[in-house]
Amino acid sequence: SAMGPGCWRAVSSYSSPQVVVVRDGRLGTAYRALQLLVLLYFIGYVFIVQKGYQERETGPESSVITKVKGVTQSPSKVWDVGEYVDPPEGGSSFSILTRVEVSAAQAMGTCHEVSMGHRAGCCQDCVSGTMDASQHGVRTGHCVPWGSGRSCEVLAWCPLHVGSNSPHLGVPSLAEMAAQFTILIKNHIRFPRFGFSKANIQAAESHYLKSCTFNATSALYCPIFRLGFLAEQAGEDFAVLAEKGGVIGVIISWDCNLDLPEMECNPRYSFRRLDPKGALASPGYNYRFAKYYIWNGTCTRVLTKAYGIRVDVIVQGQAGKFSLIPTVITLGSFLCDWVLLCCMDKERRYSSRKYEQVPVG
Amino acid sequence: SAMGPGCWRAVSSYSSPQVVVVRDGRLGTAYRALQLLVLLYFIGYVFIVQKGYQERETGPESSVITKVKGVTQSPSKVWDVGEYVDPPEGGSSFSILTRVEVSAAQAMGTCHEVSMGHRAGCCQDCVSGTMDASQHGVRTGHCVPWGSGRSCEVLAWCPLHVGSNSPHLGVPSLAEMAAQFTILIKNHIRFPRFGFSKANIQAAESHYLKSCTFNATSALYCPIFRLGFLAEQAGEDFAVLAEKGGVIGVIISWDCNLDLPEMECNPRYSFRRLDPKGALASPGYNYRFAKYYIWNGTCTRVLTKAYGIRVDVIVQGQAGKFSLIPTVITLGSFLCDWVLLCCMDKERRYSSRKYEQVPVG
Amino acid sequence: SAMGPGCWRAVSSYSSPQVVVVRDGRLGTAYRALQLLVLLYFIGYVFIVQKGYQERETGPESSVITKVKGVTQSPSKVWDVGEYVDPPEGGSSFSILTRVEVSAAQAMGTCHEVSMGHRAGCCQDCVSGTMDASQHGVRTGHCVPWGSGRSCEVLAWCPLHVGSNSPHLGVPSLAEMAAQFTILIKNHIRFPRFGFSKANIQAAESHYLKSCTFNATSALYCPIFRLGFLAEQAGEDFAVLAEKGGVIGVIISWDCNLDLPEMECNPRYSFRRLDPKGALASPGYNYRFAKYYIWNGTCTRVLTKAYGIRVDVIVQGQAGKFSLIPTVITLGSFLCDWVLLCCMDKERRYSSRKYEQVPVG
Repeated sequence: SAMGPGCWRAVSSYSSPQVVVVRDGRLGTAYRALQLLVLLYFIGYVFIVQKGYQERETGPESSVITKVKGVTQSPSKVWDVGEYVDPPEGGSSFSILTRVEVSAAQAMGTCHEVSMGHRAGCCQDCVSGTMDASQHGVRTGHCVPWGSGRSCEVLAWCPLHVGSNSPHLGVPSLAEMAAQFTILIKNHIRFPRFGFSKANIQAAESHYLKSCTFNATSALYCPIFRLGFLAEQAGEDFAVLAEKGGVIGVIISWDCNLDLPEMECNPRYSFRRLDPKGALASPGYNYRFAKYYIWNGTCTRVLTKAYGIRVDVIVQGQAGKFSLIPTVITLGSFLCDWVLLCCMDKERRYSSRKYEQVPVG
Repeated sequence: SAMGPGCWRAVSSYSSPQVVVVRDGRLGTAYRALQLLVLLYFIGYVFIVQKGYQERETGPESSVITKVKGVTQSPSKVWDVGEYVDPPEGGSSFSILTRVEVSAAQAMGTCHEVSMGHRAGCCQDCVSGTMDASQHGVRTGHCVPWGSGRSCEVLAWCPLHVGSNSPHLGVPSLAEMAAQFTILIKNHIRFPRFGFSKANIQAAESHYLKSCTFNATSALYCPIFRLGFLAEQAGEDFAVLAEKGGVIGVIISWDCNLDLPEMECNPRYSFRRLDPKGALASPGYNYRFAKYYIWNGTCTRVLTKAYGIRVDVIVQGQAGKFSLIPTVITLGSFLCDWVLLCCMDKERRYSSRKYEQVPVG
Repeated sequence: SAMGPGCWRAVSSYSSPQVVVVRDGRLGTAYRALQLLVLLYFIGYVFIVQKGYQERETGPESSVITKVKGVTQSPSKVWDVGEYVDPPEGGSSFSILTRVEVSAAQAMGTCHEVSMGHRAGCCQDCVSGTMDASQHGVRTGHCVPWGSGRSCEVLAWCPLHVGSNSPHLGVPSLAEMAAQFTILIKNHIRFPRFGFSKANIQAAESHYLKSCTFNATSALYCPIFRLGFLAEQAGEDFAVLAEKGGVIGVIISWDCNLDLPEMECNPRYSFRRLDPKGALASPGYNYRFAKYYIWNGTCTRVLTKAYGIRVDVIVQGQAGKFSLIPTVITLGSFLCDWVLLCCMDKERRYSSRKYEQVPVG
């Protein structure tokens, strides 16, 4: 039980036991030290550190709305927010493309298998119905001439697009200007138990928000982050990150003592690389997506292998507020311990007058 | 320790101390009150409120599948579920478009910068390589004639689309019929520790589900919500919400006492506006997405600024079930406290016959 | 309090009470049993099972990157990863299409309502401005000839696509080869309190990862799962699952004792069907999405009703590590209980020499 059975005993010990009083200086000191320890434990640890008088709630209801701004340029085109953000809905997890490998226009048909790491002109494993090495097509089983040799014919979106070996429209790096993209993260949390809610944007700061940018030291209520700043805070080199792709976590922590004024409950931001970096088997972050067109009457697609920085916004938080039940239980527990110690002290004093004394055995 | 060291002492006090019995009516009453308090504390708080005999699990495994139905009409077109739901995969977070600003068909090229809040015909900051004010294009540095004055030339998807100032195909409101859209939310939870799972749809109600709609008072196992109902329950005006966009949380709570029959474990629904409303810096919810076409041989896109109602389905829950270990610990703790109190009572009775009595000092 | 008031009392009981020593063999045995119980409770339950000397953290920061590989074939086309994975971003929740109902090319216009379950040629409820039965169009109010009878005219994307009754390009099943698709799940977790992070891929295994496949008995650090394996482990028949659609949860559990070497902290995988199966009202998992084309100068869309297997990757975990504060509190609690028991034993021994003895009443 929270109050401890010993406590009840202490309060109820109106039948005080006859005591054999041991006169020992060291024990007297130990007794005072013990009183101090109990006091420190309750006041320091239970009350101040653990806030034993508060009801607590973790995991607030949260909503995140994000909006990216900025524009960048590759040799062939201009990339605005409609081009490089995916998915576009402004949720808590989105990717900003930083490098793309765009395939040539592909149509359904047959073409030769692109051999990777094999000798050119070799028709290995050319069995009808099996997958080709790039896992994008189905082999027909025909061995067709290709360059100076022969290659297996595949039924697929042709021509095949296999990484950087394949014909593509260029591998533009969007990284240079991408570091200047800004990400607005609107976060609103609510602790349902306390009916308390707060946003990381302040109502009065409409004008301020048009020009501000977040930095680590000031600008607490300006949740507009430069992409380069996120990478830097996460300890990453932006150019490398943009080349290989990666996941950056923006962790918003709300640690609120609701006994204080509302203005003391503020978000705290931290930034971390979430995917494993280094010499891993399959490093970085990339994915493929297709866009479809009707071109000269046939259905055509362009497949893009996109390297990007995925931003995951993670919201966590806890709130505490004074509440009667935990206070009564914690205070009761403390008072009982205290009374117990004091009573024993008293007992000792008056019993020492009345009863026999024995030497310490 | 859960059982309290005082408890062990009480059970083990077969060497009963000689007691100085204090005869005092008030103390006797206090002693009885104490017994009552311990009884109330354990039976009322620990057993009934905290269910100290149960093993508990929070945060069930959960899956959410959503499906929207309905159709609405703008002057230029009919919007069915393939048009206004994004993303379409039927996950736990999706947007229903309620207002769109559709750009004219855009192609990569150069056009004049659209000045916002600046004097028309002014070539401010027209430096090559910098972003234009709308952050959709890159300035070429050329100051070109525009209307009666001049404007900076930008390389971008042209013509630029800048909010309601830009040429677009109309700003149709989809709000009127959107309130009648229905959202089916299939939720299935599982508490792995207890091997218990339940869905918010009942197997027998196949036919019922075709015609029912959720309302606050009945229809517990009919998780089909009108979009207008969600807004109303969240305390929002649907027309305003649809105009500016916003995030509505559908919170499904499972609070299950698995010692009772399965039919006592039911979902509870609550609805809340999750994003901050009011005079905020950046109110509401909107985002931009592009669709791509080949038009007259050139790649063309249509950029849509979409205002919508994002629905976030949040599932939470806890379950408790009788288990031996917490029961033994809680019961042990209670019994010890009780035995302690009773024993002391007994001790007093028989010791009062035998030992000397002292007045209260 | 964690240490229990009875504990303080025991340590501070240098004023030892005079005891009435009860000589009883059964009580002596009970006393030894009690000592054993306390020892077992602390050493077995509090220290070994509950690891009372550790600070704990649950809910690690986690990032998931997924990548699907494989190719399948329908009569009309080859499906590679760009076609059957949706959304393509490689997040923790994605669908693999296993069956599609593709509509004919649709354009905005008027066509006849497709009656479902009604008598053909019946113009029921043909009121202007109301929805048609399939909820894809708006009725114009005109009753037009259709086949041998009449049908209500609707303004919609025409022709209407209503399930398997509607004209479509075929219902190819992708299931046969889909079971061979492989899913790479890269997971990286971090316990911020302990500054500990680990991935489910090991740096040294780059080559191994190119050829391995996960199986239940070995291949712990090869998180490459065949889709058929996931279904099998979740206890589902792949063909049925692919036909109707469903949600498979891949649950990755990290239960780490950080006092042991890092190599003892390993992921554990479990697989479960997350959506309710069986004779439910609205079984399985499917959704609709549209692709848009310009065809002969008019905007055309193809609507696809996609049945698929949604894979939800759920990461959970807890870590514990030796920490001073919980150790001091737990150890203190144990030592006090122990000292208490031992002291009482001692007291008994020397008090038995000195004081009067009474028979058990």
